[in-house]
Amino acid sequence: MARVKMGMVGGSLEAFIGNVHRMAAGLDGHVELVCGAFSSDPKKSKETGATLNLNPSRVYDSFKRMIEKEKNLPEEERMDFVSIVTPNFLHYEPANMALEAGFHVLCEKPLAFSLKQAQELEKLVLKTNLIFGVTHNYTGYPMVKEARNMIKGGKLGKIRKVIAEYPQGWLSEKIEDGGQRQADWRTDPDRAGISCCVADIGTHAENLAEYTTGLKIKELAADVSTFVKGRKLDDDANILLRFDNGAKGVLMASQIATGEENELRIRIYGDKGSLEWLQSDPNKLIYKTPKGPQQIIKTGAGYHWLSAQTEAHTRLPGGHPEGYIESMANLYRNFAMSIHAHKEGEEHSNLLDFPTITDGVRGMKFIEKVIDSGKKNAAWVSL
Amino acid sequence: MARVKMGMVGGSLEAFIGNVHRMAAGLDGHVELVCGAFSSDPKKSKETGATLNLNPSRVYDSFKRMIEKEKNLPEEERMDFVSIVTPNFLHYEPANMALEAGFHVLCEKPLAFSLKQAQELEKLVLKTNLIFGVTHNYTGYPMVKEARNMIKGGKLGKIRKVIAEYPQGWLSEKIEDGGQRQADWRTDPDRAGISCCVADIGTHAENLAEYTTGLKIKELAADVSTFVKGRKLDDDANILLRFDNGAKGVLMASQIATGEENELRIRIYGDKGSLEWLQSDPNKLIYKTPKGPQQIIKTGAGYHWLSAQTEAHTRLPGGHPEGYIESMANLYRNFAMSIHAHKEGEEHSNLLDFPTITDGVRGMKFIEKVIDSGKKNAAWVSL
Amino acid sequence: MARVKMGMVGGSLEAFIGNVHRMAAGLDGHVELVCGAFSSDPKKSKETGATLNLNPSRVYDSFKRMIEKEKNLPEEERMDFVSIVTPNFLHYEPANMALEAGFHVLCEKPLAFSLKQAQELEKLVLKTNLIFGVTHNYTGYPMVKEARNMIKGGKLGKIRKVIAEYPQGWLSEKIEDGGQRQADWRTDPDRAGISCCVADIGTHAENLAEYTTGLKIKELAADVSTFVKGRKLDDDANILLRFDNGAKGVLMASQIATGEENELRIRIYGDKGSLEWLQSDPNKLIYKTPKGPQQIIKTGAGYHWLSAQTEAHTRLPGGHPEGYIESMANLYRNFAMSIHAHKEGEEHSNLLDFPTITDGVRGMKFIEKVIDSGKKNAAWVSL
Amino acid sequence: MARVKMGMVGGSLEAFIGNVHRMAAGLDGHVELVCGAFSSDPKKSKETGATLNLNPSRVYDSFKRMIEKEKNLPEEERMDFVSIVTPNFLHYEPANMALEAGFHVLCEKPLAFSLKQAQELEKLVLKTNLIFGVTHNYTGYPMVKEARNMIKGGKLGKIRKVIAEYPQGWLSEKIEDGGQRQADWRTDPDRAGISCCVADIGTHAENLAEYTTGLKIKELAADVSTFVKGRKLDDDANILLRFDNGAKGVLMASQIATGEENELRIRIYGDKGSLEWLQSDPNKLIYKTPKGPQQIIKTGAGYHWLSAQTEAHTRLPGGHPEGYIESMANLYRNFAMSIHAHKEGEEHSNLLDFPTITDGVRGMKFIEKVIDSGKKNAAWVSL
Repeated sequence: MARVKMGMVGGSLEAFIGNVHRMAAGLDGHVELVCGAFSSDPKKSKETGATLNLNPSRVYDSFKRMIEKEKNLPEEERMDFVSIVTPNFLHYEPANMALEAGFHVLCEKPLAFSLKQAQELEKLVLKTNLIFGVTHNYTGYPMVKEARNMIKGGKLGKIRKVIAEYPQGWLSEKIEDGGQRQADWRTDPDRAGISCCVADIGTHAENLAEYTTGLKIKELAADVSTFVKGRKLDDDANILLRFDNGAKGVLMASQIATGEENELRIRIYGDKGSLEWLQSDPNKLIYKTPKGPQQIIKTGAGYHWLSAQTEAHTRLPGGHPEGYIESMANLYRNFAMSIHAHKEGEEHSNLLDFPTITDGVRGMKFIEKVIDSGKKNAAWVSL
Repeated sequence: MARVKMGMVGGSLEAFIGNVHRMAAGLDGHVELVCGAFSSDPKKSKETGATLNLNPSRVYDSFKRMIEKEKNLPEEERMDFVSIVTPNFLHYEPANMALEAGFHVLCEKPLAFSLKQAQELEKLVLKTNLIFGVTHNYTGYPMVKEARNMIKGGKLGKIRKVIAEYPQGWLSEKIEDGGQRQADWRTDPDRAGISCCVADIGTHAENLAEYTTGLKIKELAADVSTFVKGRKLDDDANILLRFDNGAKGVLMASQIATGEENELRIRIYGDKGSLEWLQSDPNKLIYKTPKGPQQIIKTGAGYHWLSAQTEAHTRLPGGHPEGYIESMANLYRNFAMSIHAHKEGEEHSNLLDFPTITDGVRGMKFIEKVIDSGKKNAAWVSL
Repeated sequence: MARVKMGMVGGSLEAFIGNVHRMAAGLDGHVELVCGAFSSDPKKSKETGATLNLNPSRVYDSFKRMIEKEKNLPEEERMDFVSIVTPNFLHYEPANMALEAGFHVLCEKPLAFSLKQAQELEKLVLKTNLIFGVTHNYTGYPMVKEARNMIKGGKLGKIRKVIAEYPQGWLSEKIEDGGQRQADWRTDPDRAGISCCVADIGTHAENLAEYTTGLKIKELAADVSTFVKGRKLDDDANILLRFDNGAKGVLMASQIATGEENELRIRIYGDKGSLEWLQSDPNKLIYKTPKGPQQIIKTGAGYHWLSAQTEAHTRLPGGHPEGYIESMANLYRNFAMSIHAHKEGEEHSNLLDFPTITDGVRGMKFIEKVIDSGKKNAAWVSL
Repeated sequence: MARVKMGMVGGSLEAFIGNVHRMAAGLDGHVELVCGAFSSDPKKSKETGATLNLNPSRVYDSFKRMIEKEKNLPEEERMDFVSIVTPNFLHYEPANMALEAGFHVLCEKPLAFSLKQAQELEKLVLKTNLIFGVTHNYTGYPMVKEARNMIKGGKLGKIRKVIAEYPQGWLSEKIEDGGQRQADWRTDPDRAGISCCVADIGTHAENLAEYTTGLKIKELAADVSTFVKGRKLDDDANILLRFDNGAKGVLMASQIATGEENELRIRIYGDKGSLEWLQSDPNKLIYKTPKGPQQIIKTGAGYHWLSAQTEAHTRLPGGHPEGYIESMANLYRNFAMSIHAHKEGEEHSNLLDFPTITDGVRGMKFIEKVIDSGKKNAAWVSL
């Protein structure tokens, strides 16, 4: 298939995430970076473009200029979609403008600065019928796909209990004061929104829980904390969950879990079996049943019964570990193929799914409800 | 030291736990089983006594008879303490009677059928000045002792977050209907009390959390469930915790976590470091700090800095695994040495600690508060 | 069953191994320590006896005296067997004398100081028809029993490859110079024999490999080393193995594997599946097949298909870890029950097996052949 | 930096390895695929080129044609190097021809069909002064770099023992008969050369052992086997190693280790400490010392003391797993930057190393010596 052309908003050289997106986008050869507004600082944007060997005429000072200019390029040349990798407060405007200009959009999570913004974007997507992805990349891992399919196929029976955790320790100290770039904006209400921890990582856990189980969180009671003195937003949350099928659970997210790196984990218990998956050891899925040994299901091992969706998100044979970039590359590939199908008037395969505007809005609602419950001393709120 | 003499209430051959207690009691050679009322069925009691090579004259039909008869034996012959290993509803009476008769008591957890009973026992212990232990054996593991000492020594800094979990899967189906002995009484309000899951395993997690951190749970909000239809007591609970120092946490206990065996685990996060311990891999303690590699602290490895208390509860050199029986044997040994010291008018070493009536009462309070909060839709209740 | 009465040779308080034997012997209540010659130093022997609450008249200065005296006691009083826990050079004499006097014997490994001694003991056992056990306790673990039974039952198909390893690091430095008791005699040719590493731990790996697979090592080529300068015996060996069915393998034993504790491990590959077992995580057995997920078989989990022999060596339900002492207790229990059956003229169950004089002789042959091959620059030698 | 231009020999769509190379080459944006002779079947080559969106004029029928044609293109257009991903028997010719035509070469391992071929290539590389890389990609992992640097920095002291293993199970059955493409040529002496298992994976273990330790294998004794009946080449080898500094070791490679996926592992023991690394869990390096807890060193965790070389091969922060593709991408990036430096007359950084013709020749020598020793019943041979 012809490469889908990407323009990038944000992601200058110094921003770790920009490079990750570019590696992920390029991995399978379906996406070509053709332009970018990598920074609001024109010099930085230019340097980034130069380093990336972009045509200087397509390295822009601002996303506005990029969208305007690209719109006027011939179709075979202009970008197909915008990838937005800026901090939260800079999602809505470029996404909105890109949609209005007819470009598809892939946006970092959380989708927007507020639920209201998110809902407006959703309306616009419905109106424009454009493709909108949100980079909840963890659901791009093959073993997450397998978990979803095993559950859908009934291997766990009725789901009763879900434990989703996302402990990190990097904000145990007030590093935002030292100018740590990532910490700086995430703890700033003007750039991050109403939440730091829940927005940044809690939403990943929420997305993972709902994606794998196929259930929806119906209500929640959240004990939200800011442990580091002087910090303006939350850095920890312990949340009771109730799902729409009667299942219950816990969602724990923390950025002050000292010594933890990025330990997103989910355990799902049904009346027939259970599953456990851990992001830092992503090529395994642990399956437990009442009657037999634990089973370690592994990526690429080629069991005949692995779901077609799992196989479609696996690049390597067993024992050849795939990681974070590959999970995001799965998202990019599916998103790009979806655009391709859109252009060709073809149908895009259901197997090659990716988080959409719906997931993005859901995440924003989750953030608002958790923060709301937190303010009410962990009262139950409906989601 | 001369052996301390034990009489047993409950623990006939068919009861798994009786044999475990006897193995643990005997392991270090400090305890001698001299008598027992192993069952309310005289035949079973006799058979058990015979199998254990006890003098038939000291195998009794009932704990009442045992306490009465033993009381009248010469001091050098009669039992020193009673070990009560019966279901919950049969703790109070023998404990009460034994104390009244001047015997020390070691009692299975939870301490009693109700908090009220527990508090009465506590009064009696204070009055009689006898030694009363409660078999929260998990705190007998050497690495639990090390965790406690590391925290006390400040290695974790101020504690901020505690995640205590106890997932089991054995009650995922209604096996009490099939006459499974263990399930039968635990799910029966007449024999277990107001709780199954929280009483049976939740209290272990509570005891472990408070013991290791040295903190007290100040308030909790509990979502308590009975997932298996027709079951009369809880089989699952997700609990938000707040500790007296401002730390927060989660305590999760479940008997419907299909496929889980006995996965008691604790993770403790301070502002300087964190610890993780897992009962099914008990000889490791994982220590994480912000600045360096994870450290796997191991039992018996002989680091010069291990606490004296840790060393005092370790029998074997590194790489020679110790397990559940050894953890309970630590409890029995300490309890027996405490009785010995009591008899000799000596002081018992603080290092050789064991859960006492205070822990037992605390556990009963925990059960009542959790069930209370559960009934109030997970409202906060003070502990 | 009535307790079997044990006399102990060696194992004074300061010797770690004596206490381990006593804990293991006592665990199941089938063995009673009635006498001992715990040290060649009469004072130490006395102190040990006193601490163990033995009748002082049955605490002896020497094993000779013990055997003579006990022989003359009435049958219902005198010891049934001698447990020999002394260094290698002190195995033969007490074993020989005990057998001659009609006592059963349980002897530490390696069986003797030399193969010749071992073979003489074997003759005497045949002649006297007494029971002789050797404490290769690692084969007492339930998951080792399961491995043996799975292989016997064909679950691995034809065995092709066996990797047995026993790395330890405690002799990385010349600690024998500092008077470390364990190191002192093990590295001394006058007390240990012709080998340190191969005799002390290599034989465990050999016993484990032959026991689990049911195969015999046919020939071997051994690269034997002494890495620590000035040490008189081997501290490391890498050995190529060929088995009697055509399988091949490697046996690696080391005491200079810095940082390793006691990592006895075996991996067995058949044409249909494979197994892996690791002593420091003993309650798991990893089963791999070509077509499906790895299976983690666990002790006490109660799968209906676990071998009866496995179940017969398991004390606790799943998730309650059993360890080193329990593995040795299995050996003691089986040995004691075998003596009991012998006394009663009953048949002893095959399921309750333990390493015998045959295994002991095999181990001695293994030592001699490995050292021989080592001297010949790793030439093949037949076993 | 401007992209370095790659032409590919082999790697049509159906060949798993071609796609892996393309993903790895493209990951960091330093390499651009400009042409290819993907298959000896012109149709397949064309299809592959089309799928990859290559200019059809630069998709060739044969590597000969490709090299001839590309040579005549203007410098700014023509390929800079050839990546050879064909089976072993098709390495020498294209490599030789490319070098003669002035192109740099990156070649799959093992370097050639025979040692003689390899040595001829080495001469040519010396003569032409062109850059020649060999894709022993496992040494591209950051934790392998860290191991090498820790050892170089003396953290392990003097190396005494090295255990390198590479068990796989995929050739446990004679799948070459069923037309499995990968198995087919690897077990065919006409296409693979004198070895299957040792050449395919044994050389990786050898390369890893020598790279991390900085030592050279001085002599070896190899027990080489073909377990699957009718197979023409080896599928298993157990090898004793002796290194040039006096260290000893074992190298085990197997393709009949049923149930194993790709478990390349190395353990290195020095007199001060030891390291363990496992390819299927590649972001961890286990460091053990005699005096303290095991340390789990992790990729991206940002300890200040990690070597600059480690950091230079890490893309993501801690807890974001990197895998196989990233390890190969490290190799491609370093190789490409080396070409870039060559073009610019700049010096290439030592940190950004990759396996060269020297490693390739070393691997071929290893294969020949192992097979030779195997034929001599595991006699020692010098390397």
